[in-house]
Amino acid sequence: MGLKTGREYIDSLRAWGLEAQVMGQAVRDLPGHPLISPSLRAVAATYDCAHDEATRALFRVVSPLADQEVNRFTHMHGSPEELISKVKMLRHCGGLTGCCFQRCAGMDAANAVFNTTFEIDRERGTEYHRRFRDFWAQVQRADQVAAGCMTDPKGDRSKRPTEQADLDLFLRVVERKSDGVIVRGAKLHQTGMVNSHQIIVLPTMSLRQGEEDFAVCFGLPTNAPGVHFIYGRQASDTRKLEGDGLDVGNPVFGGQEVMTVFDDVFVPQERIFLNGEVEFCGRLVERFAAYHRQSYGGCKVGVGDVLIGATALIARMNGVDRASHVRDKIVEMIHLNETLFACGLAAAALGRATPAGGCEADLLLANVCKLNVTRFPYEIARLATDVAGGLLGTMPPARALDDPVTGPYIRKYLAAAEGVEVVDRMKVLRLIENLVAGAGSVAYLIESVHGAGPPQAQRIMIGRQAGLEAKMARVRRLLKLS
Amino acid sequence: MGLKTGREYIDSLRAWGLEAQVMGQAVRDLPGHPLISPSLRAVAATYDCAHDEATRALFRVVSPLADQEVNRFTHMHGSPEELISKVKMLRHCGGLTGCCFQRCAGMDAANAVFNTTFEIDRERGTEYHRRFRDFWAQVQRADQVAAGCMTDPKGDRSKRPTEQADLDLFLRVVERKSDGVIVRGAKLHQTGMVNSHQIIVLPTMSLRQGEEDFAVCFGLPTNAPGVHFIYGRQASDTRKLEGDGLDVGNPVFGGQEVMTVFDDVFVPQERIFLNGEVEFCGRLVERFAAYHRQSYGGCKVGVGDVLIGATALIARMNGVDRASHVRDKIVEMIHLNETLFACGLAAAALGRATPAGGCEADLLLANVCKLNVTRFPYEIARLATDVAGGLLGTMPPARALDDPVTGPYIRKYLAAAEGVEVVDRMKVLRLIENLVAGAGSVAYLIESVHGAGPPQAQRIMIGRQAGLEAKMARVRRLLKLS
Amino acid sequence: MGLKTGREYIDSLRAWGLEAQVMGQAVRDLPGHPLISPSLRAVAATYDCAHDEATRALFRVVSPLADQEVNRFTHMHGSPEELISKVKMLRHCGGLTGCCFQRCAGMDAANAVFNTTFEIDRERGTEYHRRFRDFWAQVQRADQVAAGCMTDPKGDRSKRPTEQADLDLFLRVVERKSDGVIVRGAKLHQTGMVNSHQIIVLPTMSLRQGEEDFAVCFGLPTNAPGVHFIYGRQASDTRKLEGDGLDVGNPVFGGQEVMTVFDDVFVPQERIFLNGEVEFCGRLVERFAAYHRQSYGGCKVGVGDVLIGATALIARMNGVDRASHVRDKIVEMIHLNETLFACGLAAAALGRATPAGGCEADLLLANVCKLNVTRFPYEIARLATDVAGGLLGTMPPARALDDPVTGPYIRKYLAAAEGVEVVDRMKVLRLIENLVAGAGSVAYLIESVHGAGPPQAQRIMIGRQAGLEAKMARVRRLLKLS
Amino acid sequence: MGLKTGREYIDSLRAWGLEAQVMGQAVRDLPGHPLISPSLRAVAATYDCAHDEATRALFRVVSPLADQEVNRFTHMHGSPEELISKVKMLRHCGGLTGCCFQRCAGMDAANAVFNTTFEIDRERGTEYHRRFRDFWAQVQRADQVAAGCMTDPKGDRSKRPTEQADLDLFLRVVERKSDGVIVRGAKLHQTGMVNSHQIIVLPTMSLRQGEEDFAVCFGLPTNAPGVHFIYGRQASDTRKLEGDGLDVGNPVFGGQEVMTVFDDVFVPQERIFLNGEVEFCGRLVERFAAYHRQSYGGCKVGVGDVLIGATALIARMNGVDRASHVRDKIVEMIHLNETLFACGLAAAALGRATPAGGCEADLLLANVCKLNVTRFPYEIARLATDVAGGLLGTMPPARALDDPVTGPYIRKYLAAAEGVEVVDRMKVLRLIENLVAGAGSVAYLIESVHGAGPPQAQRIMIGRQAGLEAKMARVRRLLKLS
Repeated sequence: MGLKTGREYIDSLRAWGLEAQVMGQAVRDLPGHPLISPSLRAVAATYDCAHDEATRALFRVVSPLADQEVNRFTHMHGSPEELISKVKMLRHCGGLTGCCFQRCAGMDAANAVFNTTFEIDRERGTEYHRRFRDFWAQVQRADQVAAGCMTDPKGDRSKRPTEQADLDLFLRVVERKSDGVIVRGAKLHQTGMVNSHQIIVLPTMSLRQGEEDFAVCFGLPTNAPGVHFIYGRQASDTRKLEGDGLDVGNPVFGGQEVMTVFDDVFVPQERIFLNGEVEFCGRLVERFAAYHRQSYGGCKVGVGDVLIGATALIARMNGVDRASHVRDKIVEMIHLNETLFACGLAAAALGRATPAGGCEADLLLANVCKLNVTRFPYEIARLATDVAGGLLGTMPPARALDDPVTGPYIRKYLAAAEGVEVVDRMKVLRLIENLVAGAGSVAYLIESVHGAGPPQAQRIMIGRQAGLEAKMARVRRLLKLS
Repeated sequence: MGLKTGREYIDSLRAWGLEAQVMGQAVRDLPGHPLISPSLRAVAATYDCAHDEATRALFRVVSPLADQEVNRFTHMHGSPEELISKVKMLRHCGGLTGCCFQRCAGMDAANAVFNTTFEIDRERGTEYHRRFRDFWAQVQRADQVAAGCMTDPKGDRSKRPTEQADLDLFLRVVERKSDGVIVRGAKLHQTGMVNSHQIIVLPTMSLRQGEEDFAVCFGLPTNAPGVHFIYGRQASDTRKLEGDGLDVGNPVFGGQEVMTVFDDVFVPQERIFLNGEVEFCGRLVERFAAYHRQSYGGCKVGVGDVLIGATALIARMNGVDRASHVRDKIVEMIHLNETLFACGLAAAALGRATPAGGCEADLLLANVCKLNVTRFPYEIARLATDVAGGLLGTMPPARALDDPVTGPYIRKYLAAAEGVEVVDRMKVLRLIENLVAGAGSVAYLIESVHGAGPPQAQRIMIGRQAGLEAKMARVRRLLKLS
Repeated sequence: MGLKTGREYIDSLRAWGLEAQVMGQAVRDLPGHPLISPSLRAVAATYDCAHDEATRALFRVVSPLADQEVNRFTHMHGSPEELISKVKMLRHCGGLTGCCFQRCAGMDAANAVFNTTFEIDRERGTEYHRRFRDFWAQVQRADQVAAGCMTDPKGDRSKRPTEQADLDLFLRVVERKSDGVIVRGAKLHQTGMVNSHQIIVLPTMSLRQGEEDFAVCFGLPTNAPGVHFIYGRQASDTRKLEGDGLDVGNPVFGGQEVMTVFDDVFVPQERIFLNGEVEFCGRLVERFAAYHRQSYGGCKVGVGDVLIGATALIARMNGVDRASHVRDKIVEMIHLNETLFACGLAAAALGRATPAGGCEADLLLANVCKLNVTRFPYEIARLATDVAGGLLGTMPPARALDDPVTGPYIRKYLAAAEGVEVVDRMKVLRLIENLVAGAGSVAYLIESVHGAGPPQAQRIMIGRQAGLEAKMARVRRLLKLS
Repeated sequence: MGLKTGREYIDSLRAWGLEAQVMGQAVRDLPGHPLISPSLRAVAATYDCAHDEATRALFRVVSPLADQEVNRFTHMHGSPEELISKVKMLRHCGGLTGCCFQRCAGMDAANAVFNTTFEIDRERGTEYHRRFRDFWAQVQRADQVAAGCMTDPKGDRSKRPTEQADLDLFLRVVERKSDGVIVRGAKLHQTGMVNSHQIIVLPTMSLRQGEEDFAVCFGLPTNAPGVHFIYGRQASDTRKLEGDGLDVGNPVFGGQEVMTVFDDVFVPQERIFLNGEVEFCGRLVERFAAYHRQSYGGCKVGVGDVLIGATALIARMNGVDRASHVRDKIVEMIHLNETLFACGLAAAALGRATPAGGCEADLLLANVCKLNVTRFPYEIARLATDVAGGLLGTMPPARALDDPVTGPYIRKYLAAAEGVEVVDRMKVLRLIENLVAGAGSVAYLIESVHGAGPPQAQRIMIGRQAGLEAKMARVRRLLKLS
């Protein structure tokens, strides 16, 4: 079977039969729901790019696992060059959709599980890696989307899993059976969850002896019994329900965040990739973090490209694109955006071969990448707001355009540089609003802070990976200290 | 008649009979409309504070103009101390409402007109100042809200008013009559417009010879014939229509932005405060800017207080308030917020007496104040997002709480530190969301950039006011240059 | 006796007979030593300004203590207005000298002791305040300079005074006698010490029970037996010894830092202002910090004025003063500099009357002021470096101008805009170098970080003073939390 | 002949017989002069590293040009991997020496000339590339240092070369002869010049028709007749003359900046690589800039390593290395430093093959790299200053340690954490001072701003290279604009 097109992907998802709770109501036709369809279209774009002539080479790669050409989003990266291609692919998708396209977390989780299970098996004689290879080859052949599920609710953050008032606040094994385990818990912030065919669950952090029940990693189809989806809200989300007006900002694409509940869900033995080996949780988590933090140097840069393009466009429409301060602000936006890209590329360029035959991103630089992502998009958004003007926060609704009294007023008074259609200008402003203070800001700002872990998580890793003792030793030698 | 209470203010507004186009529909009962009522409540708070024992002294002042005690929001400030009181009052209101309370622009415009008309009369023998005093004493006695209207649509920003394809893109006098003038045009970004009884229209910028028709300043009741209001959209605005759920973020208060069209509106002679004297436009505009830019060192600081308080609260609810990095981030938020306050205070402390008997804010420091306001709230918002966590962008809707399946899941899995009600936690998160990526961000972020003029406007003034030649001369002397 | 002139001050200092260890040698004629004379001239400028017609009013004030007109540098400030005058005076001095003029720490220490001793006496029945008034009235009448001495060496910073291997690492009373005490220890970073007639010693931090020996505050003439001065090095300090070449950067003025050792020094009873009352140390220290941190919003702003002026001048000399990016950078420098000034003014404007009849700077805003001072000068210096050009780091020495071969080359190839003397251009570049990477950077950069306490000290105070609980309570009310 | 050792390099340089004007005096034994020897040792380190087992592989590479193993500092890079190796090599050298090691500009200039001359020859039928290959193969075989010379004095920066009052303010051909040309002019800011055997001169900027005389590129031995060197000053430079005291900061290594005058120097035909082809100047200059701006992502990062190591060490010596704010500051320093490294690596990873068989750094990312270098070192230096403490600006001189009175005081009162030698602590402080406000700051701060072109030069390139039109087109498509 060849790689799916976007349309085939959407069909496959429709056939998958997921149900979710959306805005307080149970919804069965998820692909048909106007709140959700933009996020499906964003995922579908990752499929179509593998068929588009211009991007086909970037999105396809031969996988030794499935022994066939696969979509790079399901690939186990094997070299620094392939990690670089990943970053380029992600940037392309961000620039195409102007939003989070939701297919990275699963890719990054799979790579982490692939490499780490190999090492567990080697050290423990388990067969997790074999199981994962089987599981993943299926995903590759079926060209499916997998959601990476990591973040537990965590309850009182000052307490360990076993100290919580409710033990379920960290997902855990509540029963071990001969043919599998029963798990209970929840995962928050699941990007793209109800657009996915498969789930990969990982522990949320390093674990210690005594916390074995929480040390569980597994794969599961999203339509498995006992899995519940509660669709999250985003700023201005209901504009997607307002019909085809331009107020939605991004007219085609959007993101998706879900809270996923595992209410005593059975996981068969063959899908379990970690089960109680607490000492490997840290490695698994850090590796996922490294892959995923590096990814942010691609996807957010692509969204940044859209915001920069829109800002340059509105400047031209307003007749100020030649003003030196406007040019300077746009250069600054580019500079910040490309710095993020550079960090993603560099973490790839220093990628290291793993025992499993994969390639992992440089841990230090991947964290540096993500820490910059927690900062620069805010400054880019601020500059976009500056250049775009106050209409971002005050513009009349699209509906007012249809009104016989107000429509003509709006067309008359929002006219700008010669030759610019007022409605086009409004569209560009709404797209910028979407990214700086609307639905798109969830991915571009909030997720930039918290996705793949919050800033402090990166700082801790940076502190650990920096080789501070070696730097001090070097100074001691230079100064010939006693 | 004593000062109005909030309720009396709302009643007076209802009686005023305004109509506006809201989300594509003509609305007559504005105070009763759920999109608009939060913004009325915010204005009402500025009335109630003049009755509240704790704040009465700060909000009341005796005006020589009306010869009675007035609400400070209608006061012509007479000393640095009174300008300091203004900043404190604005900070209080921001902290009380957590939003833009919409009564500053009118106050600041009135002070600018008051002082500048005196000087025009003195130099030109006009009687603008007398007219304005009469007009304003009425406003004070009736304890009314006036909206300051400045920003013209401006069309192609690379062109002067007379060069625009449509001359109406800058508001202008289209006919001069014996008893007044007819004006045509629009004003954008009108904060609190349909909450106001009166309008003060000012020119949008310095003007030159040949641009006399655009050099017009006047007062007018908001219910004057020919004035049309088109209500602007804000991020997540329709959450206000969703009933009493907590998703609205700020459960009581909100802001308002309006596009106001003047479709051949008659302005009687007695209400005209400038009419063609182009050479005074710059002074009027700069003075308004100085008052208004200084105001931002109060109101936004108050909103910052709310965001800081909410951030500290969510940290405690999450059990991380003792973590050193969290404390450090909150200290940083405070530091930035207080720096803004310091700038507002300093512009007051160096206030200068005017010939009219008023006191004007220091022009340089008022611009410095506002330029900082265009920056720090973004960093404060970023830090709030960091501390608050990813739920800001992924939390299920309030409605899901009522569902028998999802409600219990949410209550179970969003539990945090002991003793914290899940719904309380959700409320705090929604308030933060409101300010960083929702309706509140229009005032806290977008308006912080563009209100009272965009950053570049402040930079130009700072460059002009800095006394650069004197600094160079000082260096020349120190170095004994030839 | 009237207020001293600069010359009279220098004469008085010469007569004072101090000796210091300078660059490894004992020096007796301090005013005549070329490393030291620039710092004396800077102090002398604070005297001359009290005679200069243009600044006389700002530098003179009637002191109730001495019941006569005094130099404001010896004044006990009595109102917010006087604190504002202090900031203006300090900015003037910084702008005049382009360096630290070394007379603030004593002024600020005196104000802290003045106000705090009053409260100790009231609560403890001691007579410290009376003693201090007597001491200080003498200083005022003799128009002397007092050095404020606070920073103890502190040894291992993770340990309390009594836990140090050497108890003397915090200055302490080693013997109590009927007529006074013997103290031992050292004070570091003493700005202007060997330019001073008097010393005011304060404890370095809050102290606890059991640390009474370290809780000592006193006044002493600098020429008291047992006091030793070790002159500190500064970057490029020996350029002052190179003759009258322009490489020194600042041709007239400079700063001074000293390590002061108290080797069993006797302090008579009448000069002791605190002796074991550990519970007042925190208040004394915080108060001094507040006065001194507010001062930084004046002095460093003045030095910033010089750096901005020099940068504007070199831009003009290079022919780039019209380039938009250069203008923009200079505006940014001004903006940052004025923000510091605003913070200093605001801490004054919210000054509070003390029981002793003084006025203390707002503790929160004074700390905010200083925290900004630990940041902005670095950015100002970076921008100055950017505009000035690479010659800052590569320019030939002044001596090369005299060489018959190289002199003409330098004059030929360092020519810039028409009409600019090469030597003038070199002078301006050397002045900038002095401030960004030379002797002046000690005061403008390093001292901006550490003077009046390092950033973390300010952060702790900001955290404490911010009223965080009140902000949270406000949010609870707004959200009607359970 | 094998690759030189550091000692052999110094010997070769001594034999080269250069003379320079140093501090106003003609100096013939440059390697023996204490102001200059530290900079020779830094260059020598780049030689020794090619022999050190630990770094040999990184510093050696087989050159097709010379058909032998060469020091990578003389290599024409042939692939992204080799550009990555370059960055790693430069970081290593920076970390070893703690200063600018002065061998990059020549390497980067050579690569630019190598690639560009190939294209000129192809388009113009010239033989510049052949000449350059011959020249450079000699340099490689002799393992020599070449200085890249680019920056002309430029006089009045608002004028073109031909508009200057003195035409020599841009280096130019003053006479064309059958066997070569005579050039006149100067080059400023020549890093490592009098440590070099060869000079490569490039034009300073893009040139136009009519400016052919300035479009000249050539190679020349540094000891050619008519070339004059004027040694530049650095902050605190004369501490190198003070003997073996620790005040010098960096006890072994240092940098060097020179003004080089070409007083009618003859350049033989075989050494001319560009002669009047103005249309290639831009390409040559941009290419050099790209190589050199990428290099800054290596060398400055290495110096940053030293500063970070020294900061961590002084924190430990002071007993504060466990304080959370100190750890946080050090993490921030690392983060910024690694971001610079990431940019250098990324510009390499996206390197492109050139027609000449070389590989050029990505132009956009190389400029992004350098623009970050103009910023982050200042923040790193500020944080280092913060952690290190006020002694950076106030510490007594090393000489005072020998004094029988002050020596014991210093040893007593500068004691810190247990087991720390006071002199060791002083050495670390002096090293930090060296980098933040001393001789080292010339390379770490000033050169970080101006080396390889000032920030505005990078901004212009970033604006040009960003593909802004393509970004706008993408937005147009997404929004289906009319």
